[in-house]
Parts: sequence; C-alpha cells; structure tokens
Amino acid sequence: MNTVRPIEWRDGKVRFLDQTRLPLEEVYVETDEEVVIADAIRSLAIRGAPLVGIAAGYGFVLAFQKLKTNDVQSTIAWIERTTNLFASTRPTAVNLFWALNRMRYVVIDAAGSALEETQSRLLDEAKAIHAEDEELCRVIGQLGAHLLPAASTVLTHCNTGSLATGGSGTAQSIITTAWEQLKLRHVYIDETRPLLQGARLTAWELDKLQIPFTLITDSTAAFVMQRGMVSVVLVGADRITLNGDVANKIGTYGLAVLAKHHGIPFYVAAPTTTIDFEMASGKDIPIEQRSGAEVTSYGQKQTAPSGIDVYAPAFDITPNELVSAIITEKGVLRSPFRMAMEELKKKDLSSIVRKAVFR
Amino acid sequence: MNTVRPIEWRDGKVRFLDQTRLPLEEVYVETDEEVVIADAIRSLAIRGAPLVGIAAGYGFVLAFQKLKTNDVQSTIAWIERTTNLFASTRPTAVNLFWALNRMRYVVIDAAGSALEETQSRLLDEAKAIHAEDEELCRVIGQLGAHLLPAASTVLTHCNTGSLATGGSGTAQSIITTAWEQLKLRHVYIDETRPLLQGARLTAWELDKLQIPFTLITDSTAAFVMQRGMVSVVLVGADRITLNGDVANKIGTYGLAVLAKHHGIPFYVAAPTTTIDFEMASGKDIPIEQRSGAEVTSYGQKQTAPSGIDVYAPAFDITPNELVSAIITEKGVLRSPFRMAMEELKKKDLSSIVRKAVFR
Repeated sequence: MNTVRPIEWRDGKVRFLDQTRLPLEEVYVETDEEVVIADAIRSLAIRGAPLVGIAAGYGFVLAFQKLKTNDVQSTIAWIERTTNLFASTRPTAVNLFWALNRMRYVVIDAAGSALEETQSRLLDEAKAIHAEDEELCRVIGQLGAHLLPAASTVLTHCNTGSLATGGSGTAQSIITTAWEQLKLRHVYIDETRPLLQGARLTAWELDKLQIPFTLITDSTAAFVMQRGMVSVVLVGADRITLNGDVANKIGTYGLAVLAKHHGIPFYVAAPTTTIDFEMASGKDIPIEQRSGAEVTSYGQKQTAPSGIDVYAPAFDITPNELVSAIITEKGVLRSPFRMAMEELKKKDLSSIVRKAVFR
Repeated sequence: MNTVRPIEWRDGKVRFLDQTRLPLEEVYVETDEEVVIADAIRSLAIRGAPLVGIAAGYGFVLAFQKLKTNDVQSTIAWIERTTNLFASTRPTAVNLFWALNRMRYVVIDAAGSALEETQSRLLDEAKAIHAEDEELCRVIGQLGAHLLPAASTVLTHCNTGSLATGGSGTAQSIITTAWEQLKLRHVYIDETRPLLQGARLTAWELDKLQIPFTLITDSTAAFVMQRGMVSVVLVGADRITLNGDVANKIGTYGLAVLAKHHGIPFYVAAPTTTIDFEMASGKDIPIEQRSGAEVTSYGQKQTAPSGIDVYAPAFDITPNELVSAIITEKGVLRSPFRMAMEELKKKDLSSIVRKAVFR
C-alpha cells in the first residue's frame, strides 16, 4: 500500500510535507528549527490530530539539540519554552499535549544523565510515538473494517489518512482496510470548508490508493443520505472526553445529527491518545477559532465583501448520544461510554501517569 | 430602503447586474439579445427563482422585437424557439416556466393584432411580472416578520434578497422588515457552497442595508444551532409542490433536519408563483446537476485533484414534514399543506389557466 510519509526524521532534521500546497504541489520542507514546525502546525501545513502529536515530538527533539548545558535551571527553562511554543499552536486536539507530556517525561526521567544521552533518548521517544501511531492505525483499520457491512458506501469528512497520522490513518485506515477486504463499494468525501481538507487531501489520497470516491460539498451530505447512498459515516477525532463526546472538524456534529435522522451508523475512529481521560464532557473542550480570512478568501481571491464579521470555529462537539461507536486500537467502545472509558483507563495506566506530568 | 435593481428595461434593451462578479465588482450588462439573457441565467449572472422568471419575461420581449412578420407560422416558430431557449437554462425553479407561460399567453391572446401591438403588450406583461414580484416581496416581508419572535436571530441560506427577486426579496424581505420593526437581533448567513451566494451576495446586501450579520461556513450551521444562537431558520424556494415539499438550494434539506433536531422553526418564504400546482410531491422535481468544476476550483485556482468524480446537485428537496410554514404573499400556509394549497388554487384560478398553456 503506497502510503505518504508526511513527516520524517532525517539526519538531525525534520522533513515534512507542506499540506497547504496539496493537491497541486508536493513540496517538502526540511528544517532543524522547532519554530518552523510550530508555525507549520499553526498554518496547517502539518495537520491531523495524531500527526500534530508526532510533529510536536520531533519539534521537542529539535529544540533540545540546541541545549548547550543540562543544568536543572536551563533544562527547566528549555522545557517550558518548548512546551509553550507547541501548546500555543492549536488548543483542541489532545494528542499534541499527550506527546509533549511524553517528551517532558523523558527529560525528567533522564535527570542526571549526560546531555547527549538525554537528547538521544528524546529522539528515541519521538520515533517511538511515530512508530506506535503507525501500528495504532493498522489495528484501527482492522477493527473498524470488521464493523462495516458488505458493499459499504462510506461518507467521510475532513482528512484522516496518511496525511493526518503516522500510518495509514484513522477513519481512512478503515476505508483502506475495507477496500482491501472487498467490503467497500464507494466513498463520499465532504470537501470540508473552509480549508478543504476533504477536497485537497482526502481526494488526493484516495486517488493515489485507487479507491473509488466522489467529492461533494459539505451541504450535499444530507442529500446523499436522504437518497440512501450512504451506509456508514466514518470520521476521526481531535479529542474525546470520558463521556464519549467527540471534538472533531467543524461539520462533524451536523453529520452526526443527519446520520441519526437517516438511521445511518455514525462511527468515530481514533487512537486512545485522542481520549482525554481528565475531561468529563465535551463542553469543557476549548474550541479553536480560526481567522475569518480562511472563509472570506481563497488563495488570492476574495470571496466575500471586505470587513464583514465571520464566525469560524475549527471544531465542533458531537454529543455521545449521536455516536454509534468509537473505534480505538484497544477495541470498539459503545454506549455507555463512561464505563468503556474506565475499563480502558485501567488497561492504560502508564500513559495516564505520563499525562499527569503536564496539562 | 436602498434596494439594488438587478434587472431593468431601458429603451428597448435589458440592463442586468452580472452577479458572478459580486461582491468585488458591480458590473452591469446591457443587451438586446435574448441569448445573452439565457446565458446569464445559465451562468448564474442572473439568479434567484423569481428574478429568473422576470428575466425570462424580458428575454421573451427581446426575442419578439426581432420578429418581422406576425403570420401564424413564424409566430409559432418564434414562440417555440424562445421558449426552448429559456426552458433549457435551469430546470428546477418553476417561476421560469410560469413566466414563459404568461408571455406565451399574451401572444396567443393577441392573435390577429398588429405586430407592434403584440410586441407592446409583451413588454407590458414583462413589466407587470416584474412589478407584481416587487409587491409580492413587500407582502411576504410583512407576513413573515409577524411570525418572528422579539429579538430574533435568523439563520439563512443562499441569497433571497433584491438580487434574487424584483423587489426586496423573499426570506430576505422578512429579515429586512423585521429589522425595520426592531424585531431582529442578528442574522447568520451560510456561505452556500459551491457558488457562495451567501458569502458573495447576501453578505453584500446585508452590508448595504446595515443589518448586523455574521458569515459562517455551511457546516457551522449545526454548531450555531447547538449553541442556541438561532431562533429561526428562513429560506427561499425554487419550487414547492402540492404536498408542501420544497426544492431549494442544496443544503436547505440538511438545515431543515438540523432545525427539527434543535426545535427551531423552519420557514420557507416564496411567492405563489413558486408553487407548482401541477406536481403532487417533491420526488418529481427535476434536480439540476451543475458542473463538478464549480466544486473543484475557485476562480483560477484549482482546489482538488484533477479528473476526480464530483456530484454537484444544485438543489435538494425538503419534505413537507420538516417545514414549519410556507410564507406566501397570499398568506402563511401550514401543515397539512395539501389542503392549504387547494384553498390557494381556488383563489388563484387565473394564473392556473395561464399555466395550463405550457409545461
């Protein structure tokens, strides 16, 4: 399977695909500056909750390559500076904070070691986050494909594929796996305004994978559901809370309401790194507000009058009662989610300990 | 109230605003060629169901200005040619066919008159269609504003204002009237992909009218409803069938489902010229399919991979059970719509007779 590598570690540098240039140009950027990584996350050159976590890990490594001494004071200052740099990029996805926590934990754990030793362990940890995500994607694909009926037609939103993760994707991995298992008939891709991750990125990926798909505007989703053209809605997630509420790309909540109205299963695919075990419900999730300019212009072209008011939340919250199941690498969670989450928490104590270090 | 004149008759020519150039440029086109009018309808330079009807009326006049003799054979040929020219532009809105019927009826009624007499009566009829629509808009505004609660926040889709009609609009007329009556607090405008009639046209009109509004992407509508920011959804219509099913801009059906889920009234505003008394239900309405290029590019800029499959219906059908009321110039229709329509049909026999001439 020809999967894209949207980020890679190469001889002391990070090489990433500038996703804002897709689908017309495949431009890779190589940098040893963590600020470039942070800016890339902010501008969505690097995006997708799992990939943002991976990028933050590598960014942490880049920052620590510059440290000259590892006395406690400068180390703490460096940790704070790097954490703030990345934590300020995008507030909604939890994988970012989870990855930063893992990296910070390595520094704390390595206290007293030689500087090079710490740096080397940090790189190992960033690579481990990356490699683990690749495996998570594979398992999610297997578990999710199992849920799909024969000859499924899937509706998906935004991008959840190789471009969003360290592997074959979350919801996208299920699509790919189902295709390989001959269970998939067709995919409908929401274009996903305003930044068109569906039209630019998911269409580009499915085109490469030669999986049959049709692009629609976001507001055509209701129409294709009404006409019986969709058997399952599959989306990713940026943060899932203990009660099963799901933060994901703006438009997801509307799809969930529409799926319920039409009696179509609504599945969320995400690694457990997307679960915020510290947050009780979706109402506490901070929603990133993007610039109105992303709505009122495309490229150089202005698409609305100047100076008008725009409301541009990047994410919305889907309440758990609209979620048919959450497909993680540790199993398929169903309502009541709170109970399923508690079970999961028990299995995953180590990452909880790590998470406690920083929020 | 400073309303735009998107179309006007001027000394034997039609002058219209090229709406594809808005909001950046206000370009008017003057023509005495009916083909230019038909092309403008096809390209959406002239759009909005009532305005398309008005434009077809004037187009009919332009065509008949060219007629040199009024023997039966050439008159019939000319009627067929002109009717086909306009009937082939856009299939969904019924106002277009209604206006063509009125114009054809004039020709038939004037049989035996001098050519100039027929031409003069055709111009009078086209101007009457235009003037009547202006009055319809005013009445719809009054009746609709009456339904709105105090301090309303309205969500609207596409464009239903001066740019879509011969007057102050349909749904937009209600917004304007409610604003004048101090009943309106705020308007949320769906950008309305793919052609952005909300972002380009409705935002431009509300900006001119100094009515406070906020632009959102179509898939943010669910989010603002969820947060309690919308007290009423107001849309226009391109065709309404006897059972109260409503064809309107793609995305309308999804809004209706969302409105129901959130317990928000969903009102459709349209003149009775939009009602197709000959059609029992929405499933028979032909849905115009637009070019996929309208989804995969904006201006010169390509926004999706080349050569992919796109599904781009321009309209969808909202079933009557999701419609709280239909606001016409002859009164507010409520469920069961069939009965309300039969009442209306009785009141409006003359236009039915006209309609029977051609479908």
